[in-house]
Amino acid sequence: MGAIRFSLFYEHQLPRPWDHGEEARLYQDALDQIEIADRIGFDYVWEVEHHFLEEYSHSSAPEVFLAAASQRTKRIRLGHGIVQLPPEVNHPARVAERIATLDLVSGGRVDFGTGESSSSAELGGFGVRRTAKRAEWQDAIDAITRMFVEEPFAGWDSRHVQMPPRNVVPKPVQKPHPPLWVACSRRETIEFAARNGIGALSFSFVEPEDAGRWVQEYYRIIESDECVPAGFAVNPNVCVVLPMMLHEDEATAIDRGIDGAHFFGFALAHYYGTTPHDPGRTSVWDEFQEHRAARGFDRDQIIANAEALNVNIGSLRGAVGTPEQVVDLIRRYEAVGVDQVSFVVQAGPNRHEHICEALELFGEQVLPRFAEGREEREAAKAARLAPAIEAALARRAPARELPAGYRIDEEAETARARRRRRPRVTPASVRAELRAAGRRRVQQGFYRLVHGRSDAQVERRFGARAQRVFFGGMARAFDPAVAGGFEGDLEFRLTRGDGPATVWTIRIRDGRARAREGGAGAPALTLTAATADFLRVLAGDANPASLLMDGRLRLRGDIELAPRISEMFGGPSPY
Amino acid sequence: MGAIRFSLFYEHQLPRPWDHGEEARLYQDALDQIEIADRIGFDYVWEVEHHFLEEYSHSSAPEVFLAAASQRTKRIRLGHGIVQLPPEVNHPARVAERIATLDLVSGGRVDFGTGESSSSAELGGFGVRRTAKRAEWQDAIDAITRMFVEEPFAGWDSRHVQMPPRNVVPKPVQKPHPPLWVACSRRETIEFAARNGIGALSFSFVEPEDAGRWVQEYYRIIESDECVPAGFAVNPNVCVVLPMMLHEDEATAIDRGIDGAHFFGFALAHYYGTTPHDPGRTSVWDEFQEHRAARGFDRDQIIANAEALNVNIGSLRGAVGTPEQVVDLIRRYEAVGVDQVSFVVQAGPNRHEHICEALELFGEQVLPRFAEGREEREAAKAARLAPAIEAALARRAPARELPAGYRIDEEAETARARRRRRPRVTPASVRAELRAAGRRRVQQGFYRLVHGRSDAQVERRFGARAQRVFFGGMARAFDPAVAGGFEGDLEFRLTRGDGPATVWTIRIRDGRARAREGGAGAPALTLTAATADFLRVLAGDANPASLLMDGRLRLRGDIELAPRISEMFGGPSPY
Repeated sequence: MGAIRFSLFYEHQLPRPWDHGEEARLYQDALDQIEIADRIGFDYVWEVEHHFLEEYSHSSAPEVFLAAASQRTKRIRLGHGIVQLPPEVNHPARVAERIATLDLVSGGRVDFGTGESSSSAELGGFGVRRTAKRAEWQDAIDAITRMFVEEPFAGWDSRHVQMPPRNVVPKPVQKPHPPLWVACSRRETIEFAARNGIGALSFSFVEPEDAGRWVQEYYRIIESDECVPAGFAVNPNVCVVLPMMLHEDEATAIDRGIDGAHFFGFALAHYYGTTPHDPGRTSVWDEFQEHRAARGFDRDQIIANAEALNVNIGSLRGAVGTPEQVVDLIRRYEAVGVDQVSFVVQAGPNRHEHICEALELFGEQVLPRFAEGREEREAAKAARLAPAIEAALARRAPARELPAGYRIDEEAETARARRRRRPRVTPASVRAELRAAGRRRVQQGFYRLVHGRSDAQVERRFGARAQRVFFGGMARAFDPAVAGGFEGDLEFRLTRGDGPATVWTIRIRDGRARAREGGAGAPALTLTAATADFLRVLAGDANPASLLMDGRLRLRGDIELAPRISEMFGGPSPY
Repeated sequence: MGAIRFSLFYEHQLPRPWDHGEEARLYQDALDQIEIADRIGFDYVWEVEHHFLEEYSHSSAPEVFLAAASQRTKRIRLGHGIVQLPPEVNHPARVAERIATLDLVSGGRVDFGTGESSSSAELGGFGVRRTAKRAEWQDAIDAITRMFVEEPFAGWDSRHVQMPPRNVVPKPVQKPHPPLWVACSRRETIEFAARNGIGALSFSFVEPEDAGRWVQEYYRIIESDECVPAGFAVNPNVCVVLPMMLHEDEATAIDRGIDGAHFFGFALAHYYGTTPHDPGRTSVWDEFQEHRAARGFDRDQIIANAEALNVNIGSLRGAVGTPEQVVDLIRRYEAVGVDQVSFVVQAGPNRHEHICEALELFGEQVLPRFAEGREEREAAKAARLAPAIEAALARRAPARELPAGYRIDEEAETARARRRRRPRVTPASVRAELRAAGRRRVQQGFYRLVHGRSDAQVERRFGARAQRVFFGGMARAFDPAVAGGFEGDLEFRLTRGDGPATVWTIRIRDGRARAREGGAGAPALTLTAATADFLRVLAGDANPASLLMDGRLRLRGDIELAPRISEMFGGPSPY
C-alpha cells in the first residue's frame, strides 16, 4: 500500500477566440485557485514551461508565475516543471539561478521538473535539433546540479555548453538542491527517470493497472546498480497526470469538465503530432470543434454511470466524476504504488467558479480519505530505499574542487566560447538528422494524404506506389533505440470497402527494419484495420485507443507491442 | 521646475563572510522593505539582473524576485532592470515572455529596463564579445518589442538572433508594452537613450549640476529628429541612482549608511575594472577593508555638517544624511529636470532595521514635500512632448504583418538556425576584437604594475621602456566612437619624487591617436600627477575624483574632457 500526494497541474489554457485581454483574468484566477489548493491541503502545484503553444499553454515564464504564487501560499510545494533544458532555450546558469531564487522567496518549497520539449513549435522556434535534445538534457542537468553544489562551479566544456568557472549565486535553500523530476510520456522515459534517480512525471494518461507495471519497473531500477543519479540527491517518486472535474452529481461533473479534458488531449495531439499550424492564425479550438469526434474525443461517448473512471484512456475522461468515483480511481493508483496524482483542472473552456467548487469539494471529500498514516508509510518507504539511495549516490561523479588561483579572463574565456560554439558535424550526426527529417516527412505525407478526405478518397490514393513509399518510409524511420531489442515480424492487414485487403510485413532483425508486401509466416503481432482508419492513426488524425474500443482496430499476438509501434517508427511523443 | 518620482534600487548585496544561509534572510528582508516602500508611497522598485557577481549582487533572477514582490504590494511599479539583452544570456523570446508574465501577475506595473552587461565576470561567463554587445542590444530590443506587438511575431534573421515566425504568448497588460529604459553610465549612453526614445537610468553618481546638462541634452534629442524609438512607445525620463541612508541625526545616518554606500562604489569598481577575481575565493569585503581609503572611500573623510550632499562625487556619499539634507539634494535634482531619483539603501553591510527606519522616515519627512502639483506638472510635460513623440514614433519601422499561410516546419527552421549560428568572421571583426583585447591587456598590465607596490617601486618600474609600451598601448586602445569628434593634444606630466617629470603627449587627429615623448605646444588639456598616482588611476586602483579633491591630480585646459579620458582609451564602464 503506497502513500499518495496530490497536486494541481497548470498549462494556462486559453481556447480562442481571444484578443489577449483574457490572459490577465486567466493568471489572476489561477492565483486564486492555488490559494484555495494551499488552504485545503493540496501538496504541490505544478506549472509547465511552454513556448508559442497558443491556446494549449500560455505558460511561458513559470518562474514568474510560481514566484507570485509563493507569496499567496504558505505550505504548498511549487513544482517548476517542466523547465526546458536545451541550452538554446535556457542557459544552464539562468536555470540554476531562477530555481535557487524561487527556492529563496518560497522558503524552500521548490520541486525542479526537467524536460527537453518536443513540439515542432518549440524545437523549430529555438533551433533545437530533435536528435540532440536528449543529450542536451543529460548534459545540462549535470551542469545545473553542479552549479547548486559547487562553490565555485568549476566550469563546463561539452558539445552543448561552454562556461568558465564562476560562483553561481544565489544557492537554493534546500540542500543539496530541490528534488528533481523529469517529464515522461512512455515506458522508456520512466525507466530513464529511474536510471537517473529522479522523479517521473508521467503524461501518458495510463490506466492504474498499466501504471502499476511501470512503477514496479521504476523502483526495481532505483534499487539496482543501473541507477546513477543525475543530481546530488535521489528523488524516488512517480506522478501521473489526469484531467479532473468534481461534482456530487456525475452528469454535472461531466458537463463542466469533459470539454476541458478533451480539449487538453486534442490540443496536445495537435502540437505534438504533425497537424499543420499557422502561427497566430490557426484556431485549435475551431479544429477541436470540427474534428474532436474523429480523434476520439466525442462528447457523446462519455455517459454518466457507465463504468469506473479512466479504464478507457482513449476517451481521456480522467478523473471527471463524483467524489466517490475519484476516490475509487485514486485508490487504484495508490494500490499499485503511484506516489502522486496531479490534476489538470484548468483546461480548455473550464470555468473559474467550477474549478474553485471542484477544489473545495476535493478538500472536503477526497483529500481526508488519503491522509491517515501517510507520513508513516512515507517514512517506511524512505527507510527501505535508504541503502539503495546511498549506494546510488556513491556512483555519481562527485562535486569538483577548482584549484585556487583561477582568474576571470574575459578575452580568453570569450574566445574559447566562440570557438566551441561552431557545431560539430560528423557523418553520424548527418545520418541521424536525415533519419529524423525523413520520419517527419513521412508523417507529414500521411497527414496530407488523409486530412479532410473521405475514407473512399483515402483508399483510392493509397495505391501500389503509395504503399511502397509508405511502408518503405516506415522501415527507414525505424529507431532501434526505442524498440528495446525486439526482433520479429509485424503484419499489417489493411481492409478496403471495395476489394481484397492490402497485406504488408515489416521484419525487424539486427537493429534494422525491412518492409515487403505480403503476410508473415509467424508474425509477432498482426494489426487489422480499414485502410483509411490505419492511415489516420499514423497521421495523428485518429485515436488508436478509440478505434480499439470500437472494434475498428484489431490486434492479434503480442498486444503489449502495439502501443510502442508508433514510437518505434518515429511517432510523436509530447516529451 | 520638474516633477520628481522616487524609487528603491536593489542589487541584493551580501558582503562576505557567508555560507549562503544568509541569502534567504536577505531576500525575505528585501520583500519586507518593498512592502514598506509601497505603503509609504515610493513609486518604483528597481531590481538588477547580475550574474556571478558574488557579494556585489546576488540578484541573478529578478523576474522571480519581482514576481514575489508583486503579490506583497499594490501600487508600486516593478522596475525589471536592467535585463541583460545579449542573446547568449537571455533569448529574446524568453525576455518578452517573462516581462509579459510579470506584467500579468502585477496588473500592469512593469517597467522594462535594458542593458548589455559590462563586467568581465558576466561577459566571459556567457561568452559575450564586448565589441558586439551594443549591436546585440539594438538587435534584441527591436525583436523583443516586436514580440510584444506583432501577432504573430513575423520572425527574425539577424547576425545575433534567428527565430522563425511564432506567436509569442502571453502579451503584456500595458499596451503597446511596458515603458522601456536603458542603463547609462556616461554622457554618450544618455544621448544614446534619447536617440532610442527610452528612459535613461544613470549610474554615474553625478552632481545635480552635471546631471542638468545631461538632462538638457537628453530632452533636446528626444524632441529632435535624431530620436528614432527602439520600441513602439517613447518613455522620456531620466533617473539618477544614489546611495541613501536617513536619520534625524546626521552622524548617525553616516554611521549607518556610509559603509554600504562605499562598499557599493568599491565593489562596482572591483567588478567593472580589471581587479583580478578568483571565483568563489576572492573576498571583495576584505579587499574593501584593506584598500577603501586608497580608492577614494575613506570613512574618515565623511564628516557631518561639512557641506551639502553629493557635491563630492568621488566620496560617493550620495544621499546619506538627514531628511533636510536629502530634501535639499532632491530639490537640486528636481530643479535641473531629473525625473526620478533611485536610492540604493540595501548596500554592503547596511542593516535591515536601519533600512526600514530610513524608509519610514523618508515617507514621513521627504516624500510629502514633493507630491504637491506633481500630476499637473507631469501632465504638462506629456502635453509639451506629445507632438515630438508622435513624430518620433512615425520614424520607427512599424509592426509587420506576416502573410497568412506560414506553416511551422521544424526541420527547415532548425536547419536554418544551425546554419546561421556559426559566427561570421570578417577582417573588421578580427581587428575590433584585437583592439579590445589589447585594451584590456594594457589595463591588466597597469594593475600588475601598481597593485601592492609602494610609490617608489612603481616609479622605478616605470622606466623609459615601460613608458613607451604604456603610452603606445594607450594610443592604440583609443576608441574614436567615444571621443565624440574631439581633436587635439592631451599632455601628461608625471612627477617623480626623485627627479624631473616625465612628459608625454597623445595627439588625436583624424580618428587616430599617436603618442610621443615631450610636451605639446598648445595642449587641449594638461594633466599633472605623481607617476604612481596616475598609474593607479588607470589601473582602477585609485579614484581620480578623490585625487582631484586632495590636489594630487591637477588639470589645466578643457577640464570637461577629463572624465572622458579613461573611456576614450578603453577604461571600464559599468554598462
